[in-house]
Amino acid sequence: MGNECSEPVSQIHLTPKMTVGELVDAMGNAGAYNGGALFRAVQIYEKMLRDKKATKFFGLAGAMVPAGMGGIVADLITSGHIDILVSTGANLTHDIIEAIGCRHFHGTASCDDIELRHDEINRIYDVYLPNKAFEHFEKFMQQVFSALEPESRISISGLLTHIGRRTKKGILHSAVNKSIPVYCPAVQDSMIGLQYWLFSQNNHVTVDAFADMPALMDRCFTAEKAGALLIGGGVPKNFILQSMLMTPNGFDYAVQLTGDRPDLGGLSGATLDEARSWGKITEEAQAVTVYGDATITLPLLVAAVMERIHHD
Amino acid sequence: MGNECSEPVSQIHLTPKMTVGELVDAMGNAGAYNGGALFRAVQIYEKMLRDKKATKFFGLAGAMVPAGMGGIVADLITSGHIDILVSTGANLTHDIIEAIGCRHFHGTASCDDIELRHDEINRIYDVYLPNKAFEHFEKFMQQVFSALEPESRISISGLLTHIGRRTKKGILHSAVNKSIPVYCPAVQDSMIGLQYWLFSQNNHVTVDAFADMPALMDRCFTAEKAGALLIGGGVPKNFILQSMLMTPNGFDYAVQLTGDRPDLGGLSGATLDEARSWGKITEEAQAVTVYGDATITLPLLVAAVMERIHHD
Amino acid sequence: MGNECSEPVSQIHLTPKMTVGELVDAMGNAGAYNGGALFRAVQIYEKMLRDKKATKFFGLAGAMVPAGMGGIVADLITSGHIDILVSTGANLTHDIIEAIGCRHFHGTASCDDIELRHDEINRIYDVYLPNKAFEHFEKFMQQVFSALEPESRISISGLLTHIGRRTKKGILHSAVNKSIPVYCPAVQDSMIGLQYWLFSQNNHVTVDAFADMPALMDRCFTAEKAGALLIGGGVPKNFILQSMLMTPNGFDYAVQLTGDRPDLGGLSGATLDEARSWGKITEEAQAVTVYGDATITLPLLVAAVMERIHHD
Amino acid sequence: MGNECSEPVSQIHLTPKMTVGELVDAMGNAGAYNGGALFRAVQIYEKMLRDKKATKFFGLAGAMVPAGMGGIVADLITSGHIDILVSTGANLTHDIIEAIGCRHFHGTASCDDIELRHDEINRIYDVYLPNKAFEHFEKFMQQVFSALEPESRISISGLLTHIGRRTKKGILHSAVNKSIPVYCPAVQDSMIGLQYWLFSQNNHVTVDAFADMPALMDRCFTAEKAGALLIGGGVPKNFILQSMLMTPNGFDYAVQLTGDRPDLGGLSGATLDEARSWGKITEEAQAVTVYGDATITLPLLVAAVMERIHHD
Repeated sequence: MGNECSEPVSQIHLTPKMTVGELVDAMGNAGAYNGGALFRAVQIYEKMLRDKKATKFFGLAGAMVPAGMGGIVADLITSGHIDILVSTGANLTHDIIEAIGCRHFHGTASCDDIELRHDEINRIYDVYLPNKAFEHFEKFMQQVFSALEPESRISISGLLTHIGRRTKKGILHSAVNKSIPVYCPAVQDSMIGLQYWLFSQNNHVTVDAFADMPALMDRCFTAEKAGALLIGGGVPKNFILQSMLMTPNGFDYAVQLTGDRPDLGGLSGATLDEARSWGKITEEAQAVTVYGDATITLPLLVAAVMERIHHD
Repeated sequence: MGNECSEPVSQIHLTPKMTVGELVDAMGNAGAYNGGALFRAVQIYEKMLRDKKATKFFGLAGAMVPAGMGGIVADLITSGHIDILVSTGANLTHDIIEAIGCRHFHGTASCDDIELRHDEINRIYDVYLPNKAFEHFEKFMQQVFSALEPESRISISGLLTHIGRRTKKGILHSAVNKSIPVYCPAVQDSMIGLQYWLFSQNNHVTVDAFADMPALMDRCFTAEKAGALLIGGGVPKNFILQSMLMTPNGFDYAVQLTGDRPDLGGLSGATLDEARSWGKITEEAQAVTVYGDATITLPLLVAAVMERIHHD
Repeated sequence: MGNECSEPVSQIHLTPKMTVGELVDAMGNAGAYNGGALFRAVQIYEKMLRDKKATKFFGLAGAMVPAGMGGIVADLITSGHIDILVSTGANLTHDIIEAIGCRHFHGTASCDDIELRHDEINRIYDVYLPNKAFEHFEKFMQQVFSALEPESRISISGLLTHIGRRTKKGILHSAVNKSIPVYCPAVQDSMIGLQYWLFSQNNHVTVDAFADMPALMDRCFTAEKAGALLIGGGVPKNFILQSMLMTPNGFDYAVQLTGDRPDLGGLSGATLDEARSWGKITEEAQAVTVYGDATITLPLLVAAVMERIHHD
Repeated sequence: MGNECSEPVSQIHLTPKMTVGELVDAMGNAGAYNGGALFRAVQIYEKMLRDKKATKFFGLAGAMVPAGMGGIVADLITSGHIDILVSTGANLTHDIIEAIGCRHFHGTASCDDIELRHDEINRIYDVYLPNKAFEHFEKFMQQVFSALEPESRISISGLLTHIGRRTKKGILHSAVNKSIPVYCPAVQDSMIGLQYWLFSQNNHVTVDAFADMPALMDRCFTAEKAGALLIGGGVPKNFILQSMLMTPNGFDYAVQLTGDRPDLGGLSGATLDEARSWGKITEEAQAVTVYGDATITLPLLVAAVMERIHHD
């Protein structure tokens, strides 16, 4: 019938001071559930990063920068491991907030949100962000926007590059430094967007919603191979996966870290197998989904892959 | 200390042929967990729909149209219960597909996606959509886009109105009929967007990403009161809630139906209490989240509210 | 390849005062995700209840009685729709509490649990239960236990029958009235168990952990057909499904309502397909899992099935 | 108002070959969502293990042994870090299966369960277990049971010790070696239970369901302090937490690793705050829940704590 029992589950035995890579290898020898999936994700992501022919996409959804995951993304860009970044507007907003010297803070989800409102603190689950940060953000963004060429037309990634050039650290800064495009299809849906609306009341620069598409589609058509690491779902996941739909190609590598579930039908929780039916990923693609909180699975995945790559 | 035990849980006793409203009332008398939350959602949504001063927002995320929920949305529009709709591009894509006579089909999630690929069937969990539908969609969209004024500039909602005028049923059609705006900040992130990219290779119409903001912000500033029904999270939820951030106002009513969870930090699963800290909803707002699959909770919610409203 | 697109998704159109059965039929015509699964659950559970040859099991896990679901279970017993009940000890504890006239109360999950402790209120998510109820419970249970034959030996279901005979309503009362066995393998793991420990300090009645097995196994061996409705997972689900493992039979009908997820490997979230590999359910079994909160899905399921059955 | 923004979120920067402890520290400096919770879990579990006055409970639910987590549990016992183990019957069944030389195997959840049935393979999500293992298990268990004193009376933990003495590795073996009790209130609900039923058809040994309670309650009454590590929910979590209910004490330390969610009302997903209202954990208890798959969070937690403890 084809079903086989060949590779046994190894019971895990931990040793003090083991490295992250050693821990993930132990999870792989156990091989079950999301621990096993994480090991396979490490294998696939390592292969993808080592594949010089592969164009590397990174999808960033969920409130990852307020949770300290922005450092990992910026470092991956700086190391040359991301060729194309697709992000929600919120992550870029929080990236800019940190880049201009404001901070997010440890808080708690067991609190009185009306009190927080009175204390001028905005809550993101158990992360606190003071209103003051948004005041600095507003000042910075209005200055940045005022340097745009009046009456010009700009793409969303062009707008983000314009911002990134004026930051000294973080995701947008690294992206500008490495000249990689940052796509953010729903940029209006963020504080960046609200600031832009404010700016646009007295200024006339057109942000062309589709101006980024030709360059992206060219990359998709010409990519010899392609891989994607998807953090969360939302617009970034769909925008990356759909980019291959109009081409004869598909993603050859795909790793998804998500806390959603497939049975609700939404794309965010959809399996990568489903993506095969659409041709978004190839029939032979190496693909795996790790279900869980990316504040745990992303650091684990990247640390383990870095250990493997730097081992050479 | 202020904690009280006053209203007892009533054990549920079902009767044959009970109406949906009667069932939800029984859930309310029980009053616990998400069954209790659903009852409170019915109370709040009824109050919101009856409040003539309230501007009514509707956020539509998740693959709801392929699951047959589009009919509920279109009917709510036609009944005058939605003033502003914010949707993902995918839901509008599937709405157009149904509007031009193509269908989604009952399938199964336990299948071989590579076989499906060979059978030219695209899978959305347990819904099947034949490739042929996308061929009809392409033909229709290219025709529709070719009727755009050359070298013109258009907003995203303007583009969607342009499409909706050429459909004979569904969400976009109802929205045009009732002259309500449909916002879709990430329209590029959908088959509509990919078709537009195709069109734009030989045509020059600028879709201005921010052109919808002034009208939306005006509505937010002038709204006496505001309410929101949020299906899923993603861009629609955030875009609706953030729209009040720049105003002195906030949402007075908010009902969220989501399958996500709060502890992952993402906005999609965030509680509406969290939104109070930001001032997105008012301190006194009546708000509730019902966790679960919207293919169950949305029909229940709307049927129960319709029963209450039509009872008068 | 065998994959077909034949039965189209029907967009849902709701009508005021529609019955629960009509709503579930509309969900079935839509047919997607958990709404579609709920419709299939109604079909299977109707068939199971109508099948005179089928022995009907009911598994009750999760804090269902505090949430008002106990009334549904008691009524199903009284109507003859449950032949064998397997429950957690907690549900039976709360059933007794209600049966002796104490109540659970509507509360909130957004509270200070230390304050609740000072107010002598125990919390079950958003349900409150005053300590006083446990004082009445203790008095009742010690009285009931003191009527046990000294130095005797009793099975767990025997102990529960002994208790049920002394109640005037609820699940145990209905079970005694209809002479159906109630199994509770982990009875020690509940307030019933703690009360029994208290009693046993000065009394010697042996509760034989395995005394219920022969009668249960006889039922499993002789059952012409068998069906199971499983609310939640835990011991009730596993105990019911494993009961067929030693027989040549398996369940012919199985409906599971659960909020868990399969990818964590636990039995509570496991699909019923997995149960086919073990032979717990037959190869041809009609089986479906509806993911979601049973305070919504259980009333919906049972009301819709009652409507169908009483329609004749 | 009391809400403060003092400790900032640190963006994570990973380094190759970092140890697990270093990674978890970085998650703690980020401090958000479940990554932050995991760091707090490491801090609490370290303090609990170092506290010589604390009686250490361990709750084991979910299919953890088939997933390779049994090795971690056995090693914790051997290192003296578990004083009282409460387990589901299934985990002990699989522990025995491995102890007698049978293995679990890497499989896949995307499979045909009817084919698996024909191939005589039982599936636990993506773990395969051949029927042959159960044949060996039956032979072993019947031999072991036949060594029980005829007509005797035994507690469940006594029965498990009797089994553990006849194994050469694994959880039960380690527990016997270290003379720690293993409680399994629902032992009937497992293959151990089914084998015992088989044995009991011709043999008369009484397994007294409540015989373990006095010793456990004595430990709870005399414990100076107490701590619990809870993997999953189910009977083990509830049985451990309720054990303090009859005493003036409560747990001083509590760490819960679970994939369930609180809003469904079930104890498995309930927060540890809820347990404060009952007095199961003390008002001052250090307690944290990490939501996610324990095949990832358990190895991370224990490896990080071992690193800290062995560092001295």
